[in-house]
Amino acid sequence: MEQLYIIKIGGNIIDDEILLSSFLQEFAALKGHKILVHGGGKLASRVAESMGVPQQLKEGRRITDAETLKAVTMVYAGYINKNIVALLQSFDCNAVGLSGADGNVIRAHKRIHPETDYGFVGDVDEVNTSFIQSLVSQNISLIFSPLTHDKQGLLLNTNADTIAQEIAKAMSHLYEVSLVYCFEKQGVLMNASDDSSVIHSINATHFVKLKEKNIIADGMIPKLQNAFAALNAGVKVITIGHAANLQLLILQQSGTSIIHE
Amino acid sequence: MEQLYIIKIGGNIIDDEILLSSFLQEFAALKGHKILVHGGGKLASRVAESMGVPQQLKEGRRITDAETLKAVTMVYAGYINKNIVALLQSFDCNAVGLSGADGNVIRAHKRIHPETDYGFVGDVDEVNTSFIQSLVSQNISLIFSPLTHDKQGLLLNTNADTIAQEIAKAMSHLYEVSLVYCFEKQGVLMNASDDSSVIHSINATHFVKLKEKNIIADGMIPKLQNAFAALNAGVKVITIGHAANLQLLILQQSGTSIIHE
Repeated sequence: MEQLYIIKIGGNIIDDEILLSSFLQEFAALKGHKILVHGGGKLASRVAESMGVPQQLKEGRRITDAETLKAVTMVYAGYINKNIVALLQSFDCNAVGLSGADGNVIRAHKRIHPETDYGFVGDVDEVNTSFIQSLVSQNISLIFSPLTHDKQGLLLNTNADTIAQEIAKAMSHLYEVSLVYCFEKQGVLMNASDDSSVIHSINATHFVKLKEKNIIADGMIPKLQNAFAALNAGVKVITIGHAANLQLLILQQSGTSIIHE
Repeated sequence: MEQLYIIKIGGNIIDDEILLSSFLQEFAALKGHKILVHGGGKLASRVAESMGVPQQLKEGRRITDAETLKAVTMVYAGYINKNIVALLQSFDCNAVGLSGADGNVIRAHKRIHPETDYGFVGDVDEVNTSFIQSLVSQNISLIFSPLTHDKQGLLLNTNADTIAQEIAKAMSHLYEVSLVYCFEKQGVLMNASDDSSVIHSINATHFVKLKEKNIIADGMIPKLQNAFAALNAGVKVITIGHAANLQLLILQQSGTSIIHE
């Protein structure tokens, strides 16, 4: 099987023009088939606020009402996605930006939750692997914004980590997939304030213990649950680390690797 | 040669949810290879204004400063483009939305004008026909937002009529191209206030006379210049008419046809 890299880049990198540009240069230089999934960053909130849309968060997740959906569609699929694509083209990386609606590539349904109405938030049903393969095999790099659709005409806001995981799982039947979560930290840390305290690898048993000791907490818990779901579904290599170390993360020489027992 | 329909849909239709949805249903029902180019509509101005960006027009053309480019990228490539794609998917039309940067599909340069600085406005250099053909031949309908790029990392604002014309000209080497400009009028009118006064066909000589008599004026002049440029470059069928009559326009049974002498 051929190799496919799926890289997720987080919001804090998106917000920093210089970090983003140097990350994209590294991504462009990466040899082989590759997919980038980008998060949203603070721009969506700023745009929504300037349009008079108040922002609500529930346990760190955005409540997506109709006006917020409008703002995130503009910012994620428009501004961020197309600027990333234009920058990659300038680095001689032939990229195509996609939302989940394009090519019916990620179909989802509106989340039903007993207590909270998350609004226009989508949980993924299906990834169109043959469409992805048809582009990837032409050496086109795909750039995903964190939006899905329900095939009934609705766009839906979907967490970027989840999109990366769902694409990775689906594509692992066709490629040897490496999934890399890039953010602004060196990896999963033993001590959140010490960047040199990176845990080099974590298996499921280890994960439970680190949660019990509260070493892994807050937003890192869903990120790692996400990573383990991908691992258990057949994704070969999973690492979490700093966006500046993309080449090393792929070689598992930096960051935290998520591994089997 | 196979048939390829290239349909341009104007801003006034984009602004009207009901008209747009019924137009897209007609577009989805159209058999064969097809491309849609959409304009911007008033939403870009509204968003730019709500973000505190003052709008300047010069002879009906928007002056695109850096903040306006940000707003049009959000609205054209994000909100409008992705909502059109999601609606088409709900009508079982497999669509992919593109800006000129995606797949390096429309390369342009920033307009140099001796008197006016139009800002981030692009004049088209090259259309990547093989990328378009690779998608069209998979029965994917392409939905173009009116944005190009310079391959140096800059997105550029480009008139949607021009984009439709440039794609039509380039693709006419590979397909029998029909180019249809859809808007909110029945066609080119002898009397602007009488919708039944449609001129059924116009050739170049006729066009000159109609301009002299001031029957064709204002925004209709560049639209027709655009159409004649496409005709002279080998586009087979060109019609201009009402978005509600898409099927008839393709058969040249409605609207105004642009014809050779």
